Amino acid sequence: MGREVATPDIQMSPIGRVESALTDPASAPKQGDEGAPEASLVFEPAVVAALDGLEPGDEVIVITWLDRARRDVLRVHPRDDASRAQVGVFNTRSQDRPNPIGLHRVQITSIEGATVRVRSLEAVDGTPIVDVKPVLGTDISER
Amino acid sequence: MGREVATPDIQMSPIGRVESALTDPASAPKQGDEGAPEASLVFEPAVVAALDGLEPGDEVIVITWLDRARRDVLRVHPRDDASRAQVGVFNTRSQDRPNPIGLHRVQITSIEGATVRVRSLEAVDGTPIVDVKPVLGTDISER
Repeated sequence: MGREVATPDIQMSPIGRVESALTDPASAPKQGDEGAPEASLVFEPAVVAALDGLEPGDEVIVITWLDRARRDVLRVHPRDDASRAQVGVFNTRSQDRPNPIGLHRVQITSIEGATVRVRSLEAVDGTPIVDVKPVLGTDISER
Repeated sequence: MGREVATPDIQMSPIGRVESALTDPASAPKQGDEGAPEASLVFEPAVVAALDGLEPGDEVIVITWLDRARRDVLRVHPRDDASRAQVGVFNTRSQDRPNPIGLHRVQITSIEGATVRVRSLEAVDGTPIVDVKPVLGTDISER
């Protein structure tokens, strides 16, 4: 690589938590369009100003830390289907991966103070939230 | 909130680095479709197995840690335009935010060992990579 930069650990702090009727990771839908329930994003009071301008109807990308995932898994059977050949986790949306980051595209249904209600979120109750971004017409969203 | 769970810090380890001709964060395009150059994703040898199955032509979401961003900013002028009213950073794609995670939708042009070449990545040289996910037809990608 020709690069000898040290790679120190990166520290994130949760900015909030998911509150959801989903409590069992094994029964969580694999993707948000497969029957996930409504959920609440409950933000830390210290970051509520960062929500300014978001409104019901907006679509956002909620970024979570999947704190119940395994971090030592590099290859998996896609969608836990043992009949399919294993592939690298960077080619799947498996929760198990070196840095278990979750990406969830959701629509906001209401905002009350530090609580943002969203449609169809597949994260289990208590999942830490680490970032929220608007959906854009470029890069990872529509094109 | 009725929730008294402690919120310990989250530790991530870089899985690789961006190699790019872009070196000045101030001149980096705001989005990948605004003239960003090709770039290389150089992965740590320990995670190369997690790339299995990815091929040139595939579109992936590269998740980075924007290590030059400010973490104490909650409100910004959209796109650094002082004539526009400030909004919360969760309603913008500003790099400055409590946990400066970057999302980059890119197309793979070649893969050689631990080096994945991609089209049009707006991250500056040396940016840590923390995850890679395939683009799906659901959640954060098209629909």
